[in-house]
Amino acid sequence: MMTDFSKSFLEERITLYKQDLLNDIVPFWIKHAVDHEDGGFTFCLNRDGGIIDTDKGIWQTGRFTWLLATLCNEIEPKEEWLSLARHGANFLDRYGFDEDGKMFFIVDKKGNPVRKRRYAYSESFTAIANAALYKATKEEFYAERAMQLFHNYRKLIHEPGIFPPKFSMHRNMKGIGTLMIGIVTAQELRKNLNDTTYTQYIHSCIDEISQNFMKSEFEALMENVAADGSFIDHFDGRILNPGHALEAAWFILEEARVNHHNPSLIELGTTILDWMWRWGWDQEYGGIFYFRDVKGLPVTEYWHDMKFWWPQNEAIIATLLAYELTQDPKYANWYQLIHDWVFEHFPDRQYGEWFGYLHRDGRLSTPLKGNIWKGPFHIPRMYLMAWQIMERIKEKF
Amino acid sequence: MMTDFSKSFLEERITLYKQDLLNDIVPFWIKHAVDHEDGGFTFCLNRDGGIIDTDKGIWQTGRFTWLLATLCNEIEPKEEWLSLARHGANFLDRYGFDEDGKMFFIVDKKGNPVRKRRYAYSESFTAIANAALYKATKEEFYAERAMQLFHNYRKLIHEPGIFPPKFSMHRNMKGIGTLMIGIVTAQELRKNLNDTTYTQYIHSCIDEISQNFMKSEFEALMENVAADGSFIDHFDGRILNPGHALEAAWFILEEARVNHHNPSLIELGTTILDWMWRWGWDQEYGGIFYFRDVKGLPVTEYWHDMKFWWPQNEAIIATLLAYELTQDPKYANWYQLIHDWVFEHFPDRQYGEWFGYLHRDGRLSTPLKGNIWKGPFHIPRMYLMAWQIMERIKEKF
Repeated sequence: MMTDFSKSFLEERITLYKQDLLNDIVPFWIKHAVDHEDGGFTFCLNRDGGIIDTDKGIWQTGRFTWLLATLCNEIEPKEEWLSLARHGANFLDRYGFDEDGKMFFIVDKKGNPVRKRRYAYSESFTAIANAALYKATKEEFYAERAMQLFHNYRKLIHEPGIFPPKFSMHRNMKGIGTLMIGIVTAQELRKNLNDTTYTQYIHSCIDEISQNFMKSEFEALMENVAADGSFIDHFDGRILNPGHALEAAWFILEEARVNHHNPSLIELGTTILDWMWRWGWDQEYGGIFYFRDVKGLPVTEYWHDMKFWWPQNEAIIATLLAYELTQDPKYANWYQLIHDWVFEHFPDRQYGEWFGYLHRDGRLSTPLKGNIWKGPFHIPRMYLMAWQIMERIKEKF
Repeated sequence: MMTDFSKSFLEERITLYKQDLLNDIVPFWIKHAVDHEDGGFTFCLNRDGGIIDTDKGIWQTGRFTWLLATLCNEIEPKEEWLSLARHGANFLDRYGFDEDGKMFFIVDKKGNPVRKRRYAYSESFTAIANAALYKATKEEFYAERAMQLFHNYRKLIHEPGIFPPKFSMHRNMKGIGTLMIGIVTAQELRKNLNDTTYTQYIHSCIDEISQNFMKSEFEALMENVAADGSFIDHFDGRILNPGHALEAAWFILEEARVNHHNPSLIELGTTILDWMWRWGWDQEYGGIFYFRDVKGLPVTEYWHDMKFWWPQNEAIIATLLAYELTQDPKYANWYQLIHDWVFEHFPDRQYGEWFGYLHRDGRLSTPLKGNIWKGPFHIPRMYLMAWQIMERIKEKF
């Protein structure tokens, strides 16, 4: 059955992913990002790991803490990883929250608040960090934190009126981001708190994506739609974010996988993957585009044709998971295409980790390794998941 | 004295600028952007002028209204220009203002508010539009509007607490933008309302730029500094915006020119130009970069190395004006470099107007002609000013 991947190919690829993850990516961040003086992590790093900005992103702090605890849970309970996960959680606990309970977006080296935003992603990433730490330690505090933060997340995303409405009177539009993060956050809490009641929320998010964001007339998963799910024919409504959509596809495929390979979820996830691969894959240069316009009109965001690291990560996971669940050789081919392009262009074999920002043709735009947006999350998550998926495929031989 | 430009060269260049402005740029926008149905203008245009988004930017509406009235004042009192300027001012008057008197940022085709921002640039651009219309019509209403809006602008930029402070607790940082717009808005009001009392405000803005934003240790004009003028060693504090700085340079040189060629203002403006040409000019590919880092570290904004239309416009004005005021052949050379690069890459000789967004090497990123940011302002202002500067230089022969 598994004719597209030989057993030796799988073993070779698993070794590559495992080695890159454990000997390059994770050590790079542990070496350069941990602030032993003031706590937490500094993620704004130059090519060689040198700190270029001491501000601390709360999202990334939650994400790295999640990663470290997840490595403990999924690979081995290594003391270094666990103590650094606690180090991250302590910083979040101490400096992440404003007096009103809402979390900050950026704090400075000492933990003083620099910026707060109306988005609730500081909450969601801190929730998964705490859930993974609960699994690793069985300390109730972390479970309670995770549950409380996910509760706050759900409350905040359904209460958009944090700013006075007159300052953000966007037409009545909703984005796919909060639903996607709703799914993956609930999946993480379900797994690590061992609580299946999160499944209902996951399915409600998937239903809203499928009913409101999938547009068969365009064969596209939209990034933004009107509150009633209708198409908005403006720049914001026409924009497609293929990396985001491929990430949504694999969240749904993962839900299919843990639900006994639920056929309708497989159908849904692969339909999104099929549609958005066509929009996202750059047939001329390779790699996944950042933005497209669903009517083929010009996109107004300046970086629309650049190749960022994370859409490539999500494409690798989505194609591999689709192959695992369907054995359709098409997905093995797409996986090979994206893997080859990515590994030719992104890893920095001289200083470690990956570059983050390439021009359309693969040339480097900036050598930085980390900033408020790029940190130890999409790349190590891809390595870990791709390794695990390939292990499962190998077991079927 | 004027050995670097021959008289015939100046005449040839004046003809090019005049023809491009009056036969291409202005007609392109009059043909495609005027909304005869719902009033105002739609600036979001595809390469061929087709409308790709019907939302209406208030900044651009003020800017185009200013341009049309200014063409009446500086070239000829053409009825088409005057009636379209009134058409723009009417739309701003009817749909530009919220109930609290603050202006919107974007409204839809019918004039319903879509977005409001804390910035006060809708106020400043509507102020210069009304001032130019006063000059063209001598109707007191426009003068009063202009004065009131500039009053509001000054009030708003000194009252940053429109958002609850906890949502924008950026470290105590100030940008050069409000000072620059303060200068040019006051210059426009002084000229068109014939009121020299604005001079004092202009000089206070120039003093703050010179004392707080010029850093001789870097030979750079900063984009952001701390409230006390000190350097901030973070991404935001290190960033340089050469296009912005070259625009500031020519605002100061223009102030020198209208103040009997004030030597210390010429010294100040040319120092900024000399410093920022070095930071901005791309010695490898040509054109002015969007962003640089003052310590040579990676810039975190994705489009840092792209070539946008407007920094090139400001570089052309700055170099020409510096040449007019100093006769230093260096500025004639720089002007030639930037003119040649720009006219090779930006004008769209097939459909008219200029492209706006090029990659570093001059390849097109997107063919769109207009959006919320690109409209009939920097390009026609450059043509008009370059033409006028060259006429003045020619007169000295």
